[in-house]
Amino acid sequence: MKIVIIGAGNLATHTAKALRKAGEEIIMIYSQTTESACALGEALDVPYTNNILSVPVDADLYLFAIKDSALESILKQITPNNGIWAHTAGSIDINIFNPYTSRAAVFYPLQTFSKSKDVDFTNIPVCIEAVNKEDEVILYDLAKKISSDVQLVSSEQRKYLHLAAVFACNFTNHMYDIASEILETNGLSFDIIKPLLKETYDKILTLSPSQAQTGPAVRYDENIINNQFQLIKDKDVKDIYLSLSRNIYKYSKKK
Amino acid sequence: MKIVIIGAGNLATHTAKALRKAGEEIIMIYSQTTESACALGEALDVPYTNNILSVPVDADLYLFAIKDSALESILKQITPNNGIWAHTAGSIDINIFNPYTSRAAVFYPLQTFSKSKDVDFTNIPVCIEAVNKEDEVILYDLAKKISSDVQLVSSEQRKYLHLAAVFACNFTNHMYDIASEILETNGLSFDIIKPLLKETYDKILTLSPSQAQTGPAVRYDENIINNQFQLIKDKDVKDIYLSLSRNIYKYSKKK
Repeated sequence: MKIVIIGAGNLATHTAKALRKAGEEIIMIYSQTTESACALGEALDVPYTNNILSVPVDADLYLFAIKDSALESILKQITPNNGIWAHTAGSIDINIFNPYTSRAAVFYPLQTFSKSKDVDFTNIPVCIEAVNKEDEVILYDLAKKISSDVQLVSSEQRKYLHLAAVFACNFTNHMYDIASEILETNGLSFDIIKPLLKETYDKILTLSPSQAQTGPAVRYDENIINNQFQLIKDKDVKDIYLSLSRNIYKYSKKK
Repeated sequence: MKIVIIGAGNLATHTAKALRKAGEEIIMIYSQTTESACALGEALDVPYTNNILSVPVDADLYLFAIKDSALESILKQITPNNGIWAHTAGSIDINIFNPYTSRAAVFYPLQTFSKSKDVDFTNIPVCIEAVNKEDEVILYDLAKKISSDVQLVSSEQRKYLHLAAVFACNFTNHMYDIASEILETNGLSFDIIKPLLKETYDKILTLSPSQAQTGPAVRYDENIINNQFQLIKDKDVKDIYLSLSRNIYKYSKKK
């Protein structure tokens, strides 16, 4: 398949590399930012441009891996063509493509990508959606070349999947960040809690999160909760501490 | 060493098993609850009791692995003796022992323990504190027999360590729990986000949490944040969603 990648950020980079590794032909990288276009184009040794009018019109697939807020404006500028147009966003409905193409689709890899960390695409669930059944099959087969877990997910379900991912990944990482700050402020290394982070993750491979829950909040130990609340200096972090403690207790009561 | 274990919950069970495996002699299990005392006593094939007055006075170490709120009352009841008295709690100061013994100590394994999940004690950091230098050495050597990571941590530092652990473990697990509920309410399996959970954990082995942060909140994408806020039904979870999104943004600005 001849593929154009629109975007050159973390998601674009990791997906383009996986597709290339699977033997697909990436014919062009487009990015508004010349340096990003150049970096990814040179890494893959394919042409790149920051001029949307230079994007070829004969590709089989246009993969839009750009910021949600930039998508609409790019769709307006790109030259109409007969390829499949697929975006890679968790929270954008497939119908965003309606004014521009009849071959609308979604190719959503459910993963967190950082520039400096390689990922094994094989284990990443790829969520596929397409307006046309034939395009759905094409994208399903393409995704299968880079991932062992390809699923058909509707726009409606994908919104909730993305919401769950924000809690499970972005908010989880923020818990690590707050913990890290507390440790460093008090002369302790973040390394000391890494075995705890590992076990917290490992547990939910065999227990449900509600079975795995431990700590002062699940039994609402007011003495510890009040003492820990006093230890926190930042007002916003204090509020987060209390609302999460209360919600853990609420969840433990209803299950 | 002759050891008495006071308590028969998750922490008591996992610690007692690790000590036994390392060849230490556990001479008695005490628990207020007969069934718990019996279960652990029979698992280790050692005497057990629910009568505090039956606890022998000739042990070298009394390890208190009970609920924080129960500790003071047990200390009042136990027959005075010459062994080391060590509690296993994150948030209790060593001076709780002052009225009862001069051989006060702390033996705090920094880990989350669940009954139905075995843990490898070798990688668990064990935080040691003791009023007497000789007791500190005894406990350090004992801990070294079951863990490769033994550290001297003061009561003051341990409070902050426990606070960090609540964020990194208990609150992280609650993020998993909310994600799980969102998925299940919308006909999606929790399994679909497990690769994302793994990568979220894996990342912080090579990146700092602030480097690893991704998602709509770090760039404060108001469009996604408002849409996701609308998807959440529970008022408390809505509040948590907003306060965490704002705090991620705040952290990203200051770093």
